[in-house]
Amino acid sequence: MTDRGLLIVLSGPSGVGKDTVLQQFLQNRTDCILSVSATTRPPREGEADGVNYYFMPRAAFERLANAGEMLEYAEYSGNLYGTPAEKVEERRRQGKHVILEIEVQGALQVREKCPNAVLVFLMPPSVEVLRRRLQNRGTESPEVVEKRMTVAEYEMAKAAEYDYIIVNRSVDESCVQLDAVITAAGCSVKHMQHLFWRE
Amino acid sequence: MTDRGLLIVLSGPSGVGKDTVLQQFLQNRTDCILSVSATTRPPREGEADGVNYYFMPRAAFERLANAGEMLEYAEYSGNLYGTPAEKVEERRRQGKHVILEIEVQGALQVREKCPNAVLVFLMPPSVEVLRRRLQNRGTESPEVVEKRMTVAEYEMAKAAEYDYIIVNRSVDESCVQLDAVITAAGCSVKHMQHLFWRE
Repeated sequence: MTDRGLLIVLSGPSGVGKDTVLQQFLQNRTDCILSVSATTRPPREGEADGVNYYFMPRAAFERLANAGEMLEYAEYSGNLYGTPAEKVEERRRQGKHVILEIEVQGALQVREKCPNAVLVFLMPPSVEVLRRRLQNRGTESPEVVEKRMTVAEYEMAKAAEYDYIIVNRSVDESCVQLDAVITAAGCSVKHMQHLFWRE
Repeated sequence: MTDRGLLIVLSGPSGVGKDTVLQQFLQNRTDCILSVSATTRPPREGEADGVNYYFMPRAAFERLANAGEMLEYAEYSGNLYGTPAEKVEERRRQGKHVILEIEVQGALQVREKCPNAVLVFLMPPSVEVLRRRLQNRGTESPEVVEKRMTVAEYEMAKAAEYDYIIVNRSVDESCVQLDAVITAAGCSVKHMQHLFWRE
């Protein structure tokens, strides 16, 4: 019998380095996979259904959302984005730990639906480091950087509601800690309660 | 500045393999040390103060205990055994993760005093495996084995009050999991709260 995989949520402010950490992490932990979101926005050139997103008509998305079958969802720029519960459940049944890379509001929606989800927040070493990283991208205007910093400070204040906080000092160190968090979460009493009673 | 070390409590029924796991584990994690208990029993030949135990007169032990300066203590066969808080605190200030190998009652006393302590329960793969291990030692009579099994079942029922449960299928696997638990506990929001407010 394969043990059911965990549901891991990773959040963190824009510019903290989530993508870089996840990319390196997933190379070494083949028992973990990144969840694919659903969206109502049309595919861009080169995007494939089920790879970049599950593309679906708005009516289908809303039907799932209203039936409680989205773990979380939100609207951005007129398009809906969300995580279909059934897709996640399918991979967890196969024993995979499913990682959702989503923002704070979505993470807290997931916690409501799945109290056993493990919420991990990737934190910059300091506010100054985050500002410098956003500036060094060189792609955002100073106004956009400041707007992102305001959002970042709001998100970082919400980190206290997560289970684990990883301070992203280096990609290697963050990968080691994420690895430990996922292994440890599999040993947490919350996850091991099947030893005592059936879920 | 050195980060303050964690307080880790390891419990598990007699025969589950705590000593073997800890021995191998401590060889590889030099940032972790095993706590030395205090006792009122006289030293046996070859035992050194501060190594095997802190040996102390009953009056001194009771003074510490009454002053709340034992993290936990209990009496066995007319002798007191306990964990002096100050000795643990001293090593944690030096950045060491201090591991207490104590039984369930003591572990729950520690949790009362230090809500941030990380409680880890080492569990046998099954009741039958535990009985076989106790029998295979060949040193205990069938009556003693059955007595230990009764205690073990009581202790295993208490594991639900711990933070983490490690099923001791192999020493290597248990060491990997204990390693992950300690690293992850250092990332837990409980431990990281100094990012938000001063303890």
